[in-house]
Amino acid sequence: MSMIRKKVSVIGSGFTGATTAFLLAQKELCDVVLVDIPNMESSTKGKALDMLEASPVQGFDASITGTADYADTKDSDIVIITAGIARKPGMSRDDLVQTNQKVMKSVTAEIIKHSPHTTILVLTNPVDAMTYTVYKESGLPKERVIGQSGVLDTARFRTFVAQELNVSVKDVSGFVLGGHGDDMVPLVRYSAAGGVPLDTLISAERIEEIVQRTRKGGAEIVNLLGNGSAYYAPAAALVEMAESILKDQKRIIPAIAYLEGEFGMDGIYLGVPTVLGKNGIEKIIELDLTDEEKQALRKSADSVKAVMEVLA
Amino acid sequence: MSMIRKKVSVIGSGFTGATTAFLLAQKELCDVVLVDIPNMESSTKGKALDMLEASPVQGFDASITGTADYADTKDSDIVIITAGIARKPGMSRDDLVQTNQKVMKSVTAEIIKHSPHTTILVLTNPVDAMTYTVYKESGLPKERVIGQSGVLDTARFRTFVAQELNVSVKDVSGFVLGGHGDDMVPLVRYSAAGGVPLDTLISAERIEEIVQRTRKGGAEIVNLLGNGSAYYAPAAALVEMAESILKDQKRIIPAIAYLEGEFGMDGIYLGVPTVLGKNGIEKIIELDLTDEEKQALRKSADSVKAVMEVLA
Amino acid sequence: MSMIRKKVSVIGSGFTGATTAFLLAQKELCDVVLVDIPNMESSTKGKALDMLEASPVQGFDASITGTADYADTKDSDIVIITAGIARKPGMSRDDLVQTNQKVMKSVTAEIIKHSPHTTILVLTNPVDAMTYTVYKESGLPKERVIGQSGVLDTARFRTFVAQELNVSVKDVSGFVLGGHGDDMVPLVRYSAAGGVPLDTLISAERIEEIVQRTRKGGAEIVNLLGNGSAYYAPAAALVEMAESILKDQKRIIPAIAYLEGEFGMDGIYLGVPTVLGKNGIEKIIELDLTDEEKQALRKSADSVKAVMEVLA
Amino acid sequence: MSMIRKKVSVIGSGFTGATTAFLLAQKELCDVVLVDIPNMESSTKGKALDMLEASPVQGFDASITGTADYADTKDSDIVIITAGIARKPGMSRDDLVQTNQKVMKSVTAEIIKHSPHTTILVLTNPVDAMTYTVYKESGLPKERVIGQSGVLDTARFRTFVAQELNVSVKDVSGFVLGGHGDDMVPLVRYSAAGGVPLDTLISAERIEEIVQRTRKGGAEIVNLLGNGSAYYAPAAALVEMAESILKDQKRIIPAIAYLEGEFGMDGIYLGVPTVLGKNGIEKIIELDLTDEEKQALRKSADSVKAVMEVLA
Repeated sequence: MSMIRKKVSVIGSGFTGATTAFLLAQKELCDVVLVDIPNMESSTKGKALDMLEASPVQGFDASITGTADYADTKDSDIVIITAGIARKPGMSRDDLVQTNQKVMKSVTAEIIKHSPHTTILVLTNPVDAMTYTVYKESGLPKERVIGQSGVLDTARFRTFVAQELNVSVKDVSGFVLGGHGDDMVPLVRYSAAGGVPLDTLISAERIEEIVQRTRKGGAEIVNLLGNGSAYYAPAAALVEMAESILKDQKRIIPAIAYLEGEFGMDGIYLGVPTVLGKNGIEKIIELDLTDEEKQALRKSADSVKAVMEVLA
Repeated sequence: MSMIRKKVSVIGSGFTGATTAFLLAQKELCDVVLVDIPNMESSTKGKALDMLEASPVQGFDASITGTADYADTKDSDIVIITAGIARKPGMSRDDLVQTNQKVMKSVTAEIIKHSPHTTILVLTNPVDAMTYTVYKESGLPKERVIGQSGVLDTARFRTFVAQELNVSVKDVSGFVLGGHGDDMVPLVRYSAAGGVPLDTLISAERIEEIVQRTRKGGAEIVNLLGNGSAYYAPAAALVEMAESILKDQKRIIPAIAYLEGEFGMDGIYLGVPTVLGKNGIEKIIELDLTDEEKQALRKSADSVKAVMEVLA
Repeated sequence: MSMIRKKVSVIGSGFTGATTAFLLAQKELCDVVLVDIPNMESSTKGKALDMLEASPVQGFDASITGTADYADTKDSDIVIITAGIARKPGMSRDDLVQTNQKVMKSVTAEIIKHSPHTTILVLTNPVDAMTYTVYKESGLPKERVIGQSGVLDTARFRTFVAQELNVSVKDVSGFVLGGHGDDMVPLVRYSAAGGVPLDTLISAERIEEIVQRTRKGGAEIVNLLGNGSAYYAPAAALVEMAESILKDQKRIIPAIAYLEGEFGMDGIYLGVPTVLGKNGIEKIIELDLTDEEKQALRKSADSVKAVMEVLA
Repeated sequence: MSMIRKKVSVIGSGFTGATTAFLLAQKELCDVVLVDIPNMESSTKGKALDMLEASPVQGFDASITGTADYADTKDSDIVIITAGIARKPGMSRDDLVQTNQKVMKSVTAEIIKHSPHTTILVLTNPVDAMTYTVYKESGLPKERVIGQSGVLDTARFRTFVAQELNVSVKDVSGFVLGGHGDDMVPLVRYSAAGGVPLDTLISAERIEEIVQRTRKGGAEIVNLLGNGSAYYAPAAALVEMAESILKDQKRIIPAIAYLEGEFGMDGIYLGVPTVLGKNGIEKIIELDLTDEEKQALRKSADSVKAVMEVLA
């Protein structure tokens, strides 16, 4: 029987982790376990209880548990990792990589101990290298360790295009390959509004401005907030990926996948179009790229590899 | 024609205000304007943009604007006030009242300047007195100035009862009168699970424990969080009230209403069962109370009046 | 792993069966198999395909299959029986019972052959006796064979009360015991609007009229339609029951359950308050009844027994 | 204030009209008035009541009224016309056109009498000519009289493509111009799955088969049903158009619009990409077409004109 409630654990109870937990429960997709380190245990429990107390009003049935004990994550269908530190002023990129790598390793060991056959979604930056770290540490098959960046990047792109054209966000699509942020490879020719290619609707100059704004989308929010980084859109992105897997929707979603030959890449996690279903990444959709796109993707891959070299 | 999008302004961009804004937009109930003071303007814009960037993924069409300029709230159908300070250790109740009263006055003046015929929902504590302040300052008819407390109190009660019985939160109802928190007057005989009165399902002793836990529900979250107070459930409560008004649903919702004779009270804002529709509070539902309940309600009213005496 | 899509088969592709199939798929609760007899196979396939073609617009991912081959129902989590004939002018009650009993027997044999551990929901009239027939024929444990009547009866009652009071249907609750329609035992003292008992809101006389209208609710629709009977509300009722089971929501739902001592009844299917979860009926909620209610329930049970005596 | 509930009238209480009414109410988009001729009045009332009785279970607040009196449609924000006859064996196309033209004229006169500033959506076949008839008869501005065909045609196309690729319907887009069914001009180069152009995912041969199946999509359902035609997908299509207008979503939706120069056409209703918002068709999106596409569109227009010549 398949009527046992699904279970998703979210590692990291910061704004993104908490918002992810709430959006998962709100959709009645699963029971949720929100996990943080022992000295955050009380506040994690507080957030979980507050969310639960919203459930009669928002009309959802889902348990939400705050904990510092990984035993509570036992038999999770999916585990979402949002833990780790953000880069602070004065911190070198290598320091960031090494610190978060340690977090990924310890978190992954705990996850696998209690859910040896789970699927893991990774948000922690630098996300390509961190997804790789989790993959290696977990021993899971590659299709079950997946990084998030493309849903967020395209969400920002779609938002800006919808504003530009004054049309519904529902009808704007975007398409990216490669790394997150600066390393993002936008395929504008595959982006459209109501199916109509963007270049017939927006000038090349404005499109380029929108692409640049998208690349810097995370920094734009960081600068506005002053203290902290985006969490609503990243959480929404994680939930869309989880939903497609939990409900076996087979959505076509840009995700950070382990490549072994696809797009001419090997042994690297990189953002590509995938089909997400009950088995995790069920398919990687390959595309013919222009020479320019190929070059940009290679540059993006080089950038990821440079980070991977810092890994211990 | 009535197809112009509705507009709700949320005053205060803290966790409750921001979450309220997000939940309103997520349901496509209205366009949202999130307002805070000038030195929070940048972070308010950051939160609004982050929410907007979640819209293509969550699939909602709504504009969300962050601002410090009340001109942006012009012609709001509803304004929700979450601004104000929380009581800090060492702060006297009177200091809290007087500080938040000043905030209410200045905020209300700005609101009315730009939306002279709006409906205002108040969350700021002490909520009964603050709703009264807004009512007086606004010059709006009483049915258009409404405080929130009963939806939140019953949401907590319903959560605890659903856990106790291991049943869906959807089928548990609660009922309170009077003030918020300690002053809450629970009518357990009107609370039920699946229509079955609670006292046939739970021992009197456990019900009393649940009532006490509900009374202290806000403090429970404050203590767990360590720093800050509940925001998911309060935001959900505000959104339910706003939704009933915006869609003229005529939900029966416990709300803080201005009483002029109802329940034997006069000239005081107090929590009572109301019907919320396009005209705000369209009806106050009166009940026969037991002597014990009458006494508890009078005590609750006295407590509100004591706070009102502190008002400048 | 529990991420395989759930599966519900609906037996009978008439208006109620088809609407049930659509509402299940629309909520993305499961994949749906709509089954009818061989000479309805083509139209069943047509309805299924038409529904599926609505899925991109309504935004749901679910397969919907029309078939006359029970092999397609293999491993259904739930099977919903809507098949059978309606009573026609001039047809004796006994003829109806015997005809539908034959349908139940043949349908149940086919269901169990392909889904030996499923849960069955029965709508076919006379529903108490037909649910009993399916129970006996299926060999399933009693908690996995459940009849529908109370959700529909209370839905009608709630609709009429909401109209009477001009309030939201969301806040009106109703409560019935016993058989369907004329044999329904309304517990008005457990019915409320916003938690407020109905007798403080509506005169006893009007309540009695509403109760009578509810009892005759099926006939009211039959008379209006001229040709055919209600299907929107019955389908919605079936879907609510199925949803609570599929998502293990543990809703408190009035359902036709096999009683072995509960409410002083034994060896009979009768409408009582239940908790529906992943195991089917997880609990029957017993109540203290007044003498009058006890008598009405006994009369209702006698009426069901009289029908059961007609069973072959 | 804009909080008065919106109102949509649906003319024709057959399967499509009734399903449209239900889907509108279910989404709480508006109050609904379902209208049919006097000798269908009783069954129309029956359907409306049955839908209403589903509302407490499905959780929506909307009034649904069945009537034969156009006075009940007064001040409708939108009116949807599904009335008219279907072509029967042995009936000439001209007979169909002339019969339905008469229906459109009398229906439109009644609509305008009670809602002189409404927006009208037309489903009745042959839809291009019938939309023209309603436009002329109504005296409404062209942007307020809109026909449906493209949402349905692309919905079918998207369904078939999603099945072919075994991916979510949510991620497949289609694009058509011109008339309905046989006259449909598919722009496959603007159709995609997850943003990826279909021709990189499906062979040209299979795409052509899917296009042909789409063209004959209405007939496929008619043949399967044996008696009657599709109604779930057509109703969903109408509701999507109405929703975009009612909520001013500015969806980009293929719709039958009156062309005055766009796409080189003049004085004809034809399917083109539009932006639907509070003002009806707020924009027609023009495209560069290939010579082949231009020719197909001209052929489609000729076909519409041939029908228009039959109009009285």
